[in-house]
Amino acid sequence: MTKSQLVEEIIKKQSYLCVGLDSDCEKLPKGFSKDAKGVLEFNKAIIDATAAHCVGYKINTAFYESMGVKGWQAMEETLAHIPHSHFTIADAKRGDIGNTSAHYAKTFFEVLPFDAITVAPYMGKDSLDAFLAYKNKFTIVLGLTSNEGSKNFQQQKLSSGEYVYESVLKQVATWGTPEQIMFVVGATKTQELEHIRSIIPHHFLLVPGVGTQGGSLADVTKYGKNESVGLLVNASRAIIFASSENDFAEKASIAAAAYATEMKGLL
Amino acid sequence: MTKSQLVEEIIKKQSYLCVGLDSDCEKLPKGFSKDAKGVLEFNKAIIDATAAHCVGYKINTAFYESMGVKGWQAMEETLAHIPHSHFTIADAKRGDIGNTSAHYAKTFFEVLPFDAITVAPYMGKDSLDAFLAYKNKFTIVLGLTSNEGSKNFQQQKLSSGEYVYESVLKQVATWGTPEQIMFVVGATKTQELEHIRSIIPHHFLLVPGVGTQGGSLADVTKYGKNESVGLLVNASRAIIFASSENDFAEKASIAAAAYATEMKGLL
Repeated sequence: MTKSQLVEEIIKKQSYLCVGLDSDCEKLPKGFSKDAKGVLEFNKAIIDATAAHCVGYKINTAFYESMGVKGWQAMEETLAHIPHSHFTIADAKRGDIGNTSAHYAKTFFEVLPFDAITVAPYMGKDSLDAFLAYKNKFTIVLGLTSNEGSKNFQQQKLSSGEYVYESVLKQVATWGTPEQIMFVVGATKTQELEHIRSIIPHHFLLVPGVGTQGGSLADVTKYGKNESVGLLVNASRAIIFASSENDFAEKASIAAAAYATEMKGLL
Repeated sequence: MTKSQLVEEIIKKQSYLCVGLDSDCEKLPKGFSKDAKGVLEFNKAIIDATAAHCVGYKINTAFYESMGVKGWQAMEETLAHIPHSHFTIADAKRGDIGNTSAHYAKTFFEVLPFDAITVAPYMGKDSLDAFLAYKNKFTIVLGLTSNEGSKNFQQQKLSSGEYVYESVLKQVATWGTPEQIMFVVGATKTQELEHIRSIIPHHFLLVPGVGTQGGSLADVTKYGKNESVGLLVNASRAIIFASSENDFAEKASIAAAAYATEMKGLL
């Protein structure tokens, strides 16, 4: 999917919601088997219930890998169930170099035909090149995350006076276009969002942490929106685990619709 | 495996060689099918041919993931074929937080019972906690890598006067013991190795880049060795793809033995 196709979907739906399929098999609603088969059935029901309200799905690979081979299979089949109208993200946070990096890109852009993958920037430019070699695919680079540990390295100050995360945003933005690169910025970092927008005005931001983690959708939108909306706000547990009863799909639909309604008001 | 068990194996064998199973199916010797089945057969032959000369194996997950479900299966079966006497590393470079991180730890310490996993430090302390919660398992954190891109962030200078990678070594070393944490340091960084040893005198270093990537084993050993050897030097292609003919296993054995012989002389 291209950036303009994504923007078109967002404008059409008046929603920039991404639903995170963090489908921990231990947390499935009652009635589902706590295994890869249960996860796949659950995901299909969640996708069917939420597709009208969101423009993308983010699959957190950890929850699938931890079920081994059958988990990997469930990830493949979940991806295949997502409508082509929706932007798909492998939240895999990979990062390596050379031929290894090329194999990760092949994994998540070809074998599993996601539109995008999240990556860690620590190893630098040559750890991103293999991903950026693909047309119409997005590399979503960790910028400033919302967790406590973001202070350890991302928010250290460089001798230039800027923070490490600012240097990440600035350098990475020169390695590809906003048609290829997005950044992860945590939803609790609204104070920094306005500043981040001044550094990377045209890139899409993938913003996790609204809902369960306490970020405000209104603030994220106020400080993060750009000329083409430029936001994909992810909610996972607040939607997919809105209910642990038989009405889980209905409640997920209601939760996703509530985000979409709020987004429509904010656009 | 514990640190003392690993040291015991190293002393017994007078080798600190780790063989990297970067088994790209496109590069298998003639006679092997270029798929997951071929990779598994190849790996078994390589392990059988090299086990006497090395103390560990490093499985680069990218080369398995890129073959999809069957690749994941080949990774599981390759791991199962490695003798229990050998230290096993998932070179996965994962890094995420909270429950996601816990699922990665479960994947590579339980579902796939590796002794160690490589991780990226960008997200900070709470991205490592879930791994460090395991007893007798190692978290191998990216320190200073040998690629060109290490200049982009790892070698940026902080306002404190130290490099980002130095801050990574110093902070991470306070989050766990040398019985839990190792660091990745590229073999071409021998100038920095002596300095790195002054920061983290007691940790094991996983050193890739000897051989094909041009690092010198003698220099790595001179500047990187500590009181318990403290080195795992990885070679991948120089061993596993030493020959593309029918004699690939014999040539791999000879290449591994050559490293081991040189190591014995250096200890």
